[in-house]
Amino acid sequence: MSFTPTPADKFSFGLWTIGWVGQDQFGSASRAPLDVVEAVTKLGELGAYGLTFHDNDLFPFEATDAERTTQIDRLKQVLADTGVTVPMITTNLFSHPVFKDGGVTSNDRAVRRFALRKLLRNIDLAAELGAETFVMWGGREGSEFDAAKDVQAALARYREGVNMLAEYVTDRGYDLRFAIEPKPNEPRGDILLPTVGHAIAFIHTLDKPDLFGVNPEVGHEQMAGLNFTHGIAQALDAGKLFHIDLNGQRSIKFDQDLVFGHGDLQNAFSLVDLLENGGPGGGQAYTGPRHFDYKPSRTEDYDGVWESAAANMRMYLILKERAAAFRADPEVQAALAAARVAELSEPTLDPGETYTELLADASAYEDFDAEPYFNGRGFGFVKLQQLMLEHLMGARG
Amino acid sequence: MSFTPTPADKFSFGLWTIGWVGQDQFGSASRAPLDVVEAVTKLGELGAYGLTFHDNDLFPFEATDAERTTQIDRLKQVLADTGVTVPMITTNLFSHPVFKDGGVTSNDRAVRRFALRKLLRNIDLAAELGAETFVMWGGREGSEFDAAKDVQAALARYREGVNMLAEYVTDRGYDLRFAIEPKPNEPRGDILLPTVGHAIAFIHTLDKPDLFGVNPEVGHEQMAGLNFTHGIAQALDAGKLFHIDLNGQRSIKFDQDLVFGHGDLQNAFSLVDLLENGGPGGGQAYTGPRHFDYKPSRTEDYDGVWESAAANMRMYLILKERAAAFRADPEVQAALAAARVAELSEPTLDPGETYTELLADASAYEDFDAEPYFNGRGFGFVKLQQLMLEHLMGARG
Amino acid sequence: MSFTPTPADKFSFGLWTIGWVGQDQFGSASRAPLDVVEAVTKLGELGAYGLTFHDNDLFPFEATDAERTTQIDRLKQVLADTGVTVPMITTNLFSHPVFKDGGVTSNDRAVRRFALRKLLRNIDLAAELGAETFVMWGGREGSEFDAAKDVQAALARYREGVNMLAEYVTDRGYDLRFAIEPKPNEPRGDILLPTVGHAIAFIHTLDKPDLFGVNPEVGHEQMAGLNFTHGIAQALDAGKLFHIDLNGQRSIKFDQDLVFGHGDLQNAFSLVDLLENGGPGGGQAYTGPRHFDYKPSRTEDYDGVWESAAANMRMYLILKERAAAFRADPEVQAALAAARVAELSEPTLDPGETYTELLADASAYEDFDAEPYFNGRGFGFVKLQQLMLEHLMGARG
Amino acid sequence: MSFTPTPADKFSFGLWTIGWVGQDQFGSASRAPLDVVEAVTKLGELGAYGLTFHDNDLFPFEATDAERTTQIDRLKQVLADTGVTVPMITTNLFSHPVFKDGGVTSNDRAVRRFALRKLLRNIDLAAELGAETFVMWGGREGSEFDAAKDVQAALARYREGVNMLAEYVTDRGYDLRFAIEPKPNEPRGDILLPTVGHAIAFIHTLDKPDLFGVNPEVGHEQMAGLNFTHGIAQALDAGKLFHIDLNGQRSIKFDQDLVFGHGDLQNAFSLVDLLENGGPGGGQAYTGPRHFDYKPSRTEDYDGVWESAAANMRMYLILKERAAAFRADPEVQAALAAARVAELSEPTLDPGETYTELLADASAYEDFDAEPYFNGRGFGFVKLQQLMLEHLMGARG
Repeated sequence: MSFTPTPADKFSFGLWTIGWVGQDQFGSASRAPLDVVEAVTKLGELGAYGLTFHDNDLFPFEATDAERTTQIDRLKQVLADTGVTVPMITTNLFSHPVFKDGGVTSNDRAVRRFALRKLLRNIDLAAELGAETFVMWGGREGSEFDAAKDVQAALARYREGVNMLAEYVTDRGYDLRFAIEPKPNEPRGDILLPTVGHAIAFIHTLDKPDLFGVNPEVGHEQMAGLNFTHGIAQALDAGKLFHIDLNGQRSIKFDQDLVFGHGDLQNAFSLVDLLENGGPGGGQAYTGPRHFDYKPSRTEDYDGVWESAAANMRMYLILKERAAAFRADPEVQAALAAARVAELSEPTLDPGETYTELLADASAYEDFDAEPYFNGRGFGFVKLQQLMLEHLMGARG
Repeated sequence: MSFTPTPADKFSFGLWTIGWVGQDQFGSASRAPLDVVEAVTKLGELGAYGLTFHDNDLFPFEATDAERTTQIDRLKQVLADTGVTVPMITTNLFSHPVFKDGGVTSNDRAVRRFALRKLLRNIDLAAELGAETFVMWGGREGSEFDAAKDVQAALARYREGVNMLAEYVTDRGYDLRFAIEPKPNEPRGDILLPTVGHAIAFIHTLDKPDLFGVNPEVGHEQMAGLNFTHGIAQALDAGKLFHIDLNGQRSIKFDQDLVFGHGDLQNAFSLVDLLENGGPGGGQAYTGPRHFDYKPSRTEDYDGVWESAAANMRMYLILKERAAAFRADPEVQAALAAARVAELSEPTLDPGETYTELLADASAYEDFDAEPYFNGRGFGFVKLQQLMLEHLMGARG
Repeated sequence: MSFTPTPADKFSFGLWTIGWVGQDQFGSASRAPLDVVEAVTKLGELGAYGLTFHDNDLFPFEATDAERTTQIDRLKQVLADTGVTVPMITTNLFSHPVFKDGGVTSNDRAVRRFALRKLLRNIDLAAELGAETFVMWGGREGSEFDAAKDVQAALARYREGVNMLAEYVTDRGYDLRFAIEPKPNEPRGDILLPTVGHAIAFIHTLDKPDLFGVNPEVGHEQMAGLNFTHGIAQALDAGKLFHIDLNGQRSIKFDQDLVFGHGDLQNAFSLVDLLENGGPGGGQAYTGPRHFDYKPSRTEDYDGVWESAAANMRMYLILKERAAAFRADPEVQAALAAARVAELSEPTLDPGETYTELLADASAYEDFDAEPYFNGRGFGFVKLQQLMLEHLMGARG
Repeated sequence: MSFTPTPADKFSFGLWTIGWVGQDQFGSASRAPLDVVEAVTKLGELGAYGLTFHDNDLFPFEATDAERTTQIDRLKQVLADTGVTVPMITTNLFSHPVFKDGGVTSNDRAVRRFALRKLLRNIDLAAELGAETFVMWGGREGSEFDAAKDVQAALARYREGVNMLAEYVTDRGYDLRFAIEPKPNEPRGDILLPTVGHAIAFIHTLDKPDLFGVNPEVGHEQMAGLNFTHGIAQALDAGKLFHIDLNGQRSIKFDQDLVFGHGDLQNAFSLVDLLENGGPGGGQAYTGPRHFDYKPSRTEDYDGVWESAAANMRMYLILKERAAAFRADPEVQAALAAARVAELSEPTLDPGETYTELLADASAYEDFDAEPYFNGRGFGFVKLQQLMLEHLMGARG
């Protein structure tokens, strides 16, 4: 198996990822800005198929209409020249001080109206560029202090806003779906819709829930100590995995945005295994873009930026190969059987069985013997884990 | 205001809380078992109105039917004698080794069937005792190793199981609702439905979602670094706050189960303020039991146990008083106005306004001036926070 | 007791705190820069006694000698005008890209030499301004990737560097001590000397350990889930609490730098109690500056900045009052006695007792009865905690 | 390279590890007790060279002298029969309720005296069995509530106690060194000496610091979000790595005690690389026992217990092989050179250079050009990290 990416792999990158100049909370930029034409050209050469961006990655917040159009035209030209596509677009409602208390949930109503207009305009751009997914990351929608934000009101405003956006997209006939990106904190002390679960729960309160899914990011869930693969599985179960942000994080701390796989490696393995092989019939469970939302470390110059971009894709492809080998290994299959992993896919009730029949089944309760589960009937999970890690490490035969 | 609890305060305690004998991962019991009759009598004397319990808090896993009945009868008698009620019941699917890989989502199908029968039996008991809420905490529903659990299958089995329980309750005509209690980890490495958000999201995939809500626990959300008050606000927004578990936790670590308010004090304040004063018209946002799910520290003897039980209620009542004073303070009201907190309850759109009109409103975008938000238009959140803390500390005149 | 600060309270602020313009990882500045003259004047008016700063808070990295001198002279003038002092100075080795892999432990030797020179120059400035403490926060001394940094070599370079600085200070006869400020992560993935413990341990490997102590910051220790008061107690025990950074943090996440007391309130109480009342005879355990290292929230304008500055001092003074009342309360004293807190100050061995005598004391072992500690001999810790919180909340009498 | 362990690998296991019966905070035992004779026999067969134990792993707290002697004799016999050794012994001061507030730092002086006697007796046993290291894990030395423990007094008692033990060992002529094992929390809310740093700092306050080192445990440091490899490097730098506890942990949560390498895999790699190859001349940086302190998952029966024991050793050996290949790869060596990793081992000052000469070197400051570090002079750390992970995954050629 080759570890060289091709457009068929559907790898995409945010313009803000390779374009991050290294300015952080404690330091100024360590790199010069990256022009979008160079970014797209280089990504295409590396094997990526897609570019994604916030409006203000492409043109500044203060851009005139003419400046905005110029930049969009330059982007269109390089997309045409390279064959790179724009599968997703998102909106910056977090950098300018006008959004210091959020966009669609700012306590300031004028800001909320402005945010909705900025979103509507960017939706038109998404449609114009053929994007399928419109990501909403509400990085400033939150608070530091509990008394400063009426969260029920904030959720009502969030709902009001995205309901209007959904109506707009429907009326315009755009082939565009929304993906909400959760994050627990940073830059706000607490961010609304902090996890995949909260975002999906919120979607069920919307007017057009079918238009909304989630865009989970590896590091964001891990910043809450949650198992990312579990979260993706629940999103798949709910039919809500519309997009995904791949990167790396090492434990609960600030948002590191490392290269994919450069954080929790075993969880990266199980994620790729799930995405690639976790469908009902064993096929892909997710067919959308494999989108990298990472930051090249501030220590790197542009050689390092492009090395890091390539590393994301290479990590994914190595893990994909390892997951395939894991699935194909007869010893793994035996360990999975011993661990009764597939037995969990059998319904607990017999076909057509109701509670009446279950209640009448003495073998299920009255005659059920729990004692053999003491000092016996082990699940062999540790052996299975060891086999998984040995496949991850390429240490099997 | 008195800090002496009365039944009108609707304080309830789990039998497993005051009855915890102090056995933990690293040590044996430090206290003798507590009989249910003494527990109920004492709780009644302290001012609690309710007792809750797992089946195996009252009678052991191995109890014969006769032993089970004896214990239930003893409980009924003391309830009658004291006027204490049983507002909630829950089922132990985590202590016996038969549940070592979970109950309703064990990889072992026979265990799953046994678990469903144990649940059904306990539902009957809940109805018999007049409980309104049936809590489900799936402490062993999870995994340590990603390959050991097919999470999509597990969620399918979870769903299958609770759908059947809901049908049973409906058919029996029981006046009983289910409350799912999330927890991110411990005792499993990762637990399914790890947060309030995940549990509510899951509920929307059920056959009878109206029968299901959540039972959030302070410490469980804080173990994921999440703001508990925010989670409760989202549960209220979704109409899903069926029950609540109050306790204390200090940062992200093992499940401490401290006395309510003995962990993150300011979050406890904002929680009580939300529950008591956060309804649409300013009334109670939650009217159910104020249920304490805590553990008296292992360092305490029974004097300390009862001191700790009383401390939970006293903390709640002090915070309730402080929250009322906070709301009533004109300076706080001025600070809330300056922070535009109530402005968030105003819809972002004018009455009847659609996106067409919003797009036509130049004041919302074309003429909107973002510049004054730089170096101006501050929200005064820190001042508000300081006022909140001074009320919490009783330091306002 | 008045909550109005005076110079006798020894409150000091970093110029970078009130002067933080709100630029963070995800957004640009929300406030205009603050001139040092205004900063000092305003701090003096608010009751602070001291200003602290990094070299590049006062003049930019690129400043010419003339520009540097101008700014220093302006500072001296306003100090003279206001009576504000400069008790501490520190050096910025983290903002400019030259320090992207650290200063004294950069893999690049030329950078290390430059860093030492920058430090030496700033030490002269510290002496010139009469500062007593020279803080070293090595924010960029660390790594993201384990293979990228030879930590043993890094510690050797750290040691080499600070040994030279200590020799310089000694030779010059400067009355200046060094305080190392630990932090576990951010901006680097892992920072060297991540906690108070690691910093003190490192100090013991230096040539002149007496010249070195620590400058612990509330949030930095809490970012590792550690109890700040415990860390301060160990620093006091080791005679190493040379300076302190007071602020607020809510759980394990990015570095929030909230106002002091706006994070973990109960730990702030026990900290103030320790600093003010925790000395051997019950007096102050720490007599140095009460230094605030916080950031006014990005949501605030300059009114909010000064509100937040005042809030730090007010919180400290309220907590100081509450701690005094806590200590004076006879019921607290009884609870402390019941909890045998003071008994821990009695040596475990009798005066002059050696292991020989201890071994001969049958009451200590052979006749010692451990059984009464089961279901008895409770410590009453929960009651004491409740009393502490009631004092914190001003809810006693 | 073979992944089959031999005694030359110096793998040792705690009797409490393979002997853990699965009782945890939320559940009863899932396995029957393991006899020491079987434990030692089986460990020997698997290739381990050493057994370690707490006194009460071998005989119960309440054992009579005769019962104690019987068990010690049975152990000696099986050691003789198998050739397994006892390189380390430790003392249980945490399970019995007498230690509910700690052993050597309990507020109760009688308990402290009893604890010292229990330690002295166990030191004799350690010497009798030829152990080289006496580990002290103070799991109950701590508190839940800040007011309940005078930490300065606690450290004084800790010091008093271990000073006496050191004197005893010295006087008796035992060839035994002490290794303090840090842990941040669990079972106590906060444990004294929470990290490797705090323990080493404390050691410097002892009468005989040379007799004391640390016994760091992977999971314990990671529970505080700290980089374990960094902590080990600092311990090595201080000459204090006397023993090590290898296991696995996944993020900041309760103490998981997974198999070594089953948690943070990349940190496990860098750890093995450091231990095996990180000495000054490239040889072993640590030559003591590779000790596993893990818990076989509660889901396992004894087949799984022994699988898990073997997995620890196999993981170590695989990682050792991978680390050797990493070091030998010319491309890695080139990347290390590009990242200037070895340059950090060069002193920052020239041979004999003092600050006077440094101050006179204009190239270090006056003529130093920082600008090329902007947008250039990248360190190539991400490339190096990618190479490290590819070696870890066996994905290089």
